[in-house]
Amino acid sequence: MNRRIVLASRPDGEPRPENFRIEEAPLPVPAEGEALVRNLYLSIDPYMRGRMMAVKSYARHVELGEVMVGQTVGEVIASRANGLAPGDKVLTSLGWQLYGTAKQAELFRVDPARAPLTYYLGALGMPGMTAWFGLREIGQPGPGETVVVSAASGAVGSVVGQLAKSMGCRAVGIAGGPEKCAWVREGLGFDACVDYRAGNLYEDLRAACPDGVHVHFENVGGVVLDTVLRLMNPFSRLVLCGLVSDYNATEPYGLKNIRAVLVNRIRMQGMIVFDWADRYGEALAGLAALHDAGRLKVRESIVDGLERAPEALIGLLRGRNFGKQLVRLA
Amino acid sequence: MNRRIVLASRPDGEPRPENFRIEEAPLPVPAEGEALVRNLYLSIDPYMRGRMMAVKSYARHVELGEVMVGQTVGEVIASRANGLAPGDKVLTSLGWQLYGTAKQAELFRVDPARAPLTYYLGALGMPGMTAWFGLREIGQPGPGETVVVSAASGAVGSVVGQLAKSMGCRAVGIAGGPEKCAWVREGLGFDACVDYRAGNLYEDLRAACPDGVHVHFENVGGVVLDTVLRLMNPFSRLVLCGLVSDYNATEPYGLKNIRAVLVNRIRMQGMIVFDWADRYGEALAGLAALHDAGRLKVRESIVDGLERAPEALIGLLRGRNFGKQLVRLA
Repeated sequence: MNRRIVLASRPDGEPRPENFRIEEAPLPVPAEGEALVRNLYLSIDPYMRGRMMAVKSYARHVELGEVMVGQTVGEVIASRANGLAPGDKVLTSLGWQLYGTAKQAELFRVDPARAPLTYYLGALGMPGMTAWFGLREIGQPGPGETVVVSAASGAVGSVVGQLAKSMGCRAVGIAGGPEKCAWVREGLGFDACVDYRAGNLYEDLRAACPDGVHVHFENVGGVVLDTVLRLMNPFSRLVLCGLVSDYNATEPYGLKNIRAVLVNRIRMQGMIVFDWADRYGEALAGLAALHDAGRLKVRESIVDGLERAPEALIGLLRGRNFGKQLVRLA
Repeated sequence: MNRRIVLASRPDGEPRPENFRIEEAPLPVPAEGEALVRNLYLSIDPYMRGRMMAVKSYARHVELGEVMVGQTVGEVIASRANGLAPGDKVLTSLGWQLYGTAKQAELFRVDPARAPLTYYLGALGMPGMTAWFGLREIGQPGPGETVVVSAASGAVGSVVGQLAKSMGCRAVGIAGGPEKCAWVREGLGFDACVDYRAGNLYEDLRAACPDGVHVHFENVGGVVLDTVLRLMNPFSRLVLCGLVSDYNATEPYGLKNIRAVLVNRIRMQGMIVFDWADRYGEALAGLAALHDAGRLKVRESIVDGLERAPEALIGLLRGRNFGKQLVRLA
């Protein structure tokens, strides 16, 4: 039997357990050209909150009763697809379920010898590629410039700062709480990390950025974004990647310091990693090389069992995760 | 005798007449390399509100007791500068006064045979160049794309829309009141103009932009910007040129729809025309050619007498001007 989690109702504000429903279903049977995959790990990501809402966005939302979307890594257990054999490890978009079938073009073989399987959902996966393209293509920091990233201990932010270091930049993180900040500095090698919960974000960030901010990579939004805007240099770049502080809000935060964009000629640009889909290979090669060199540290929060996926997402949106959030499915 | 207006006190909210003081002073005497200029017209521009405040910005603020900054066109009446002779008409930065001296490098000869002198403060001057570089370098509209501009009947906005038309775009203005909107459509040749005072900005703008918004040129900010953000297309560009609705505010507007920047991968960029100072000649040539071809219509609001400059600025910040605001000084 398959087990899967479907969207039971749309959240109003913070998602709650009753917005999800766990179901059993017969094991799916692969058609010609498809493979049957047993999912091993499910990735939990902030964008999932948006997909729970019936609003027009860059991607289709989840319908009520539909399986929740998400990436997994899994193992092929039966194959009617050329080039895929039982035992192959694959990256999938099968969502919140234990098993699924997919066409060959929707499954990407990953190499378990090169890195742990979970890394293909994190630092070597979509979050890592988000960091790669956002920082390099939009942020475009030069050597010696200061790069700030919010949610710095998270799946995207941790890669942004390590990439910035590899590019010769000063990397400054923003994270919630002293434990995360210590990890960002000592574990990930950022030059500084500021605890936004300590209540002095502007002063602390100013002290951490003596040359101002040349590139800001925003994952959080709200008061964090408003504060960083005050410290951005003339001609600085702002990568708008996430606004997780708003995702549960019924009323969005009102951004006060947009005038900084004008006065300092800031270039602010929104990004969705899918726009670089034809260049994922380039990012994977670059990130894997950094990993091989021991310069891409990873921290993961793993919970066990499909039934804990809802609480993992709820926790992620509260900032409770510490590193890449995953659900072990098998 | 010279007469001049100095900053008497800094405004709190809307500027008031008592923030300005009119003074008499001896006629200045040109030093070697300088010319004495009699100002004929003073340009009144929104940026002047910012200069009245003692805050760090892209340009130095006016000190208390200092002459208010501003561009003028004037006539050389005495010259100790090579290449400048009495009778020459020049563009200056002499500010709110009847006479002033300046070095040759600070005076730019203008050609009264090619266009009325006042145009060098408007469509062929800084506002026109702001439109030119902002639209072409940041907005980068392609033929058939929709360009929206706020404060569309103003000095910058009126040029933005006419440039957009010359580039084969659909030009849609936003202006205050039916009279301005009629002028924008019929006088300036925009495809549409929406009256933000009519109370249906979102619906009216949506109807005026059936293909969405590809480029938005923002002069106003606040609720206008928040509304246009909802209609911007994927990969659209937002030129952040002015936020006049905030300039008098003691508390800035809180922008709600920044999430549109992320979801639609909007590129928003602040601009200050000075950054293109080395390319003014290119803009002047392009704008003058458009003017010669009869495709650069101009409307001006002119008040008479230096003593009316404060009320002209106060009115401009309230949106009372209709076209380029000027003060005739002689």
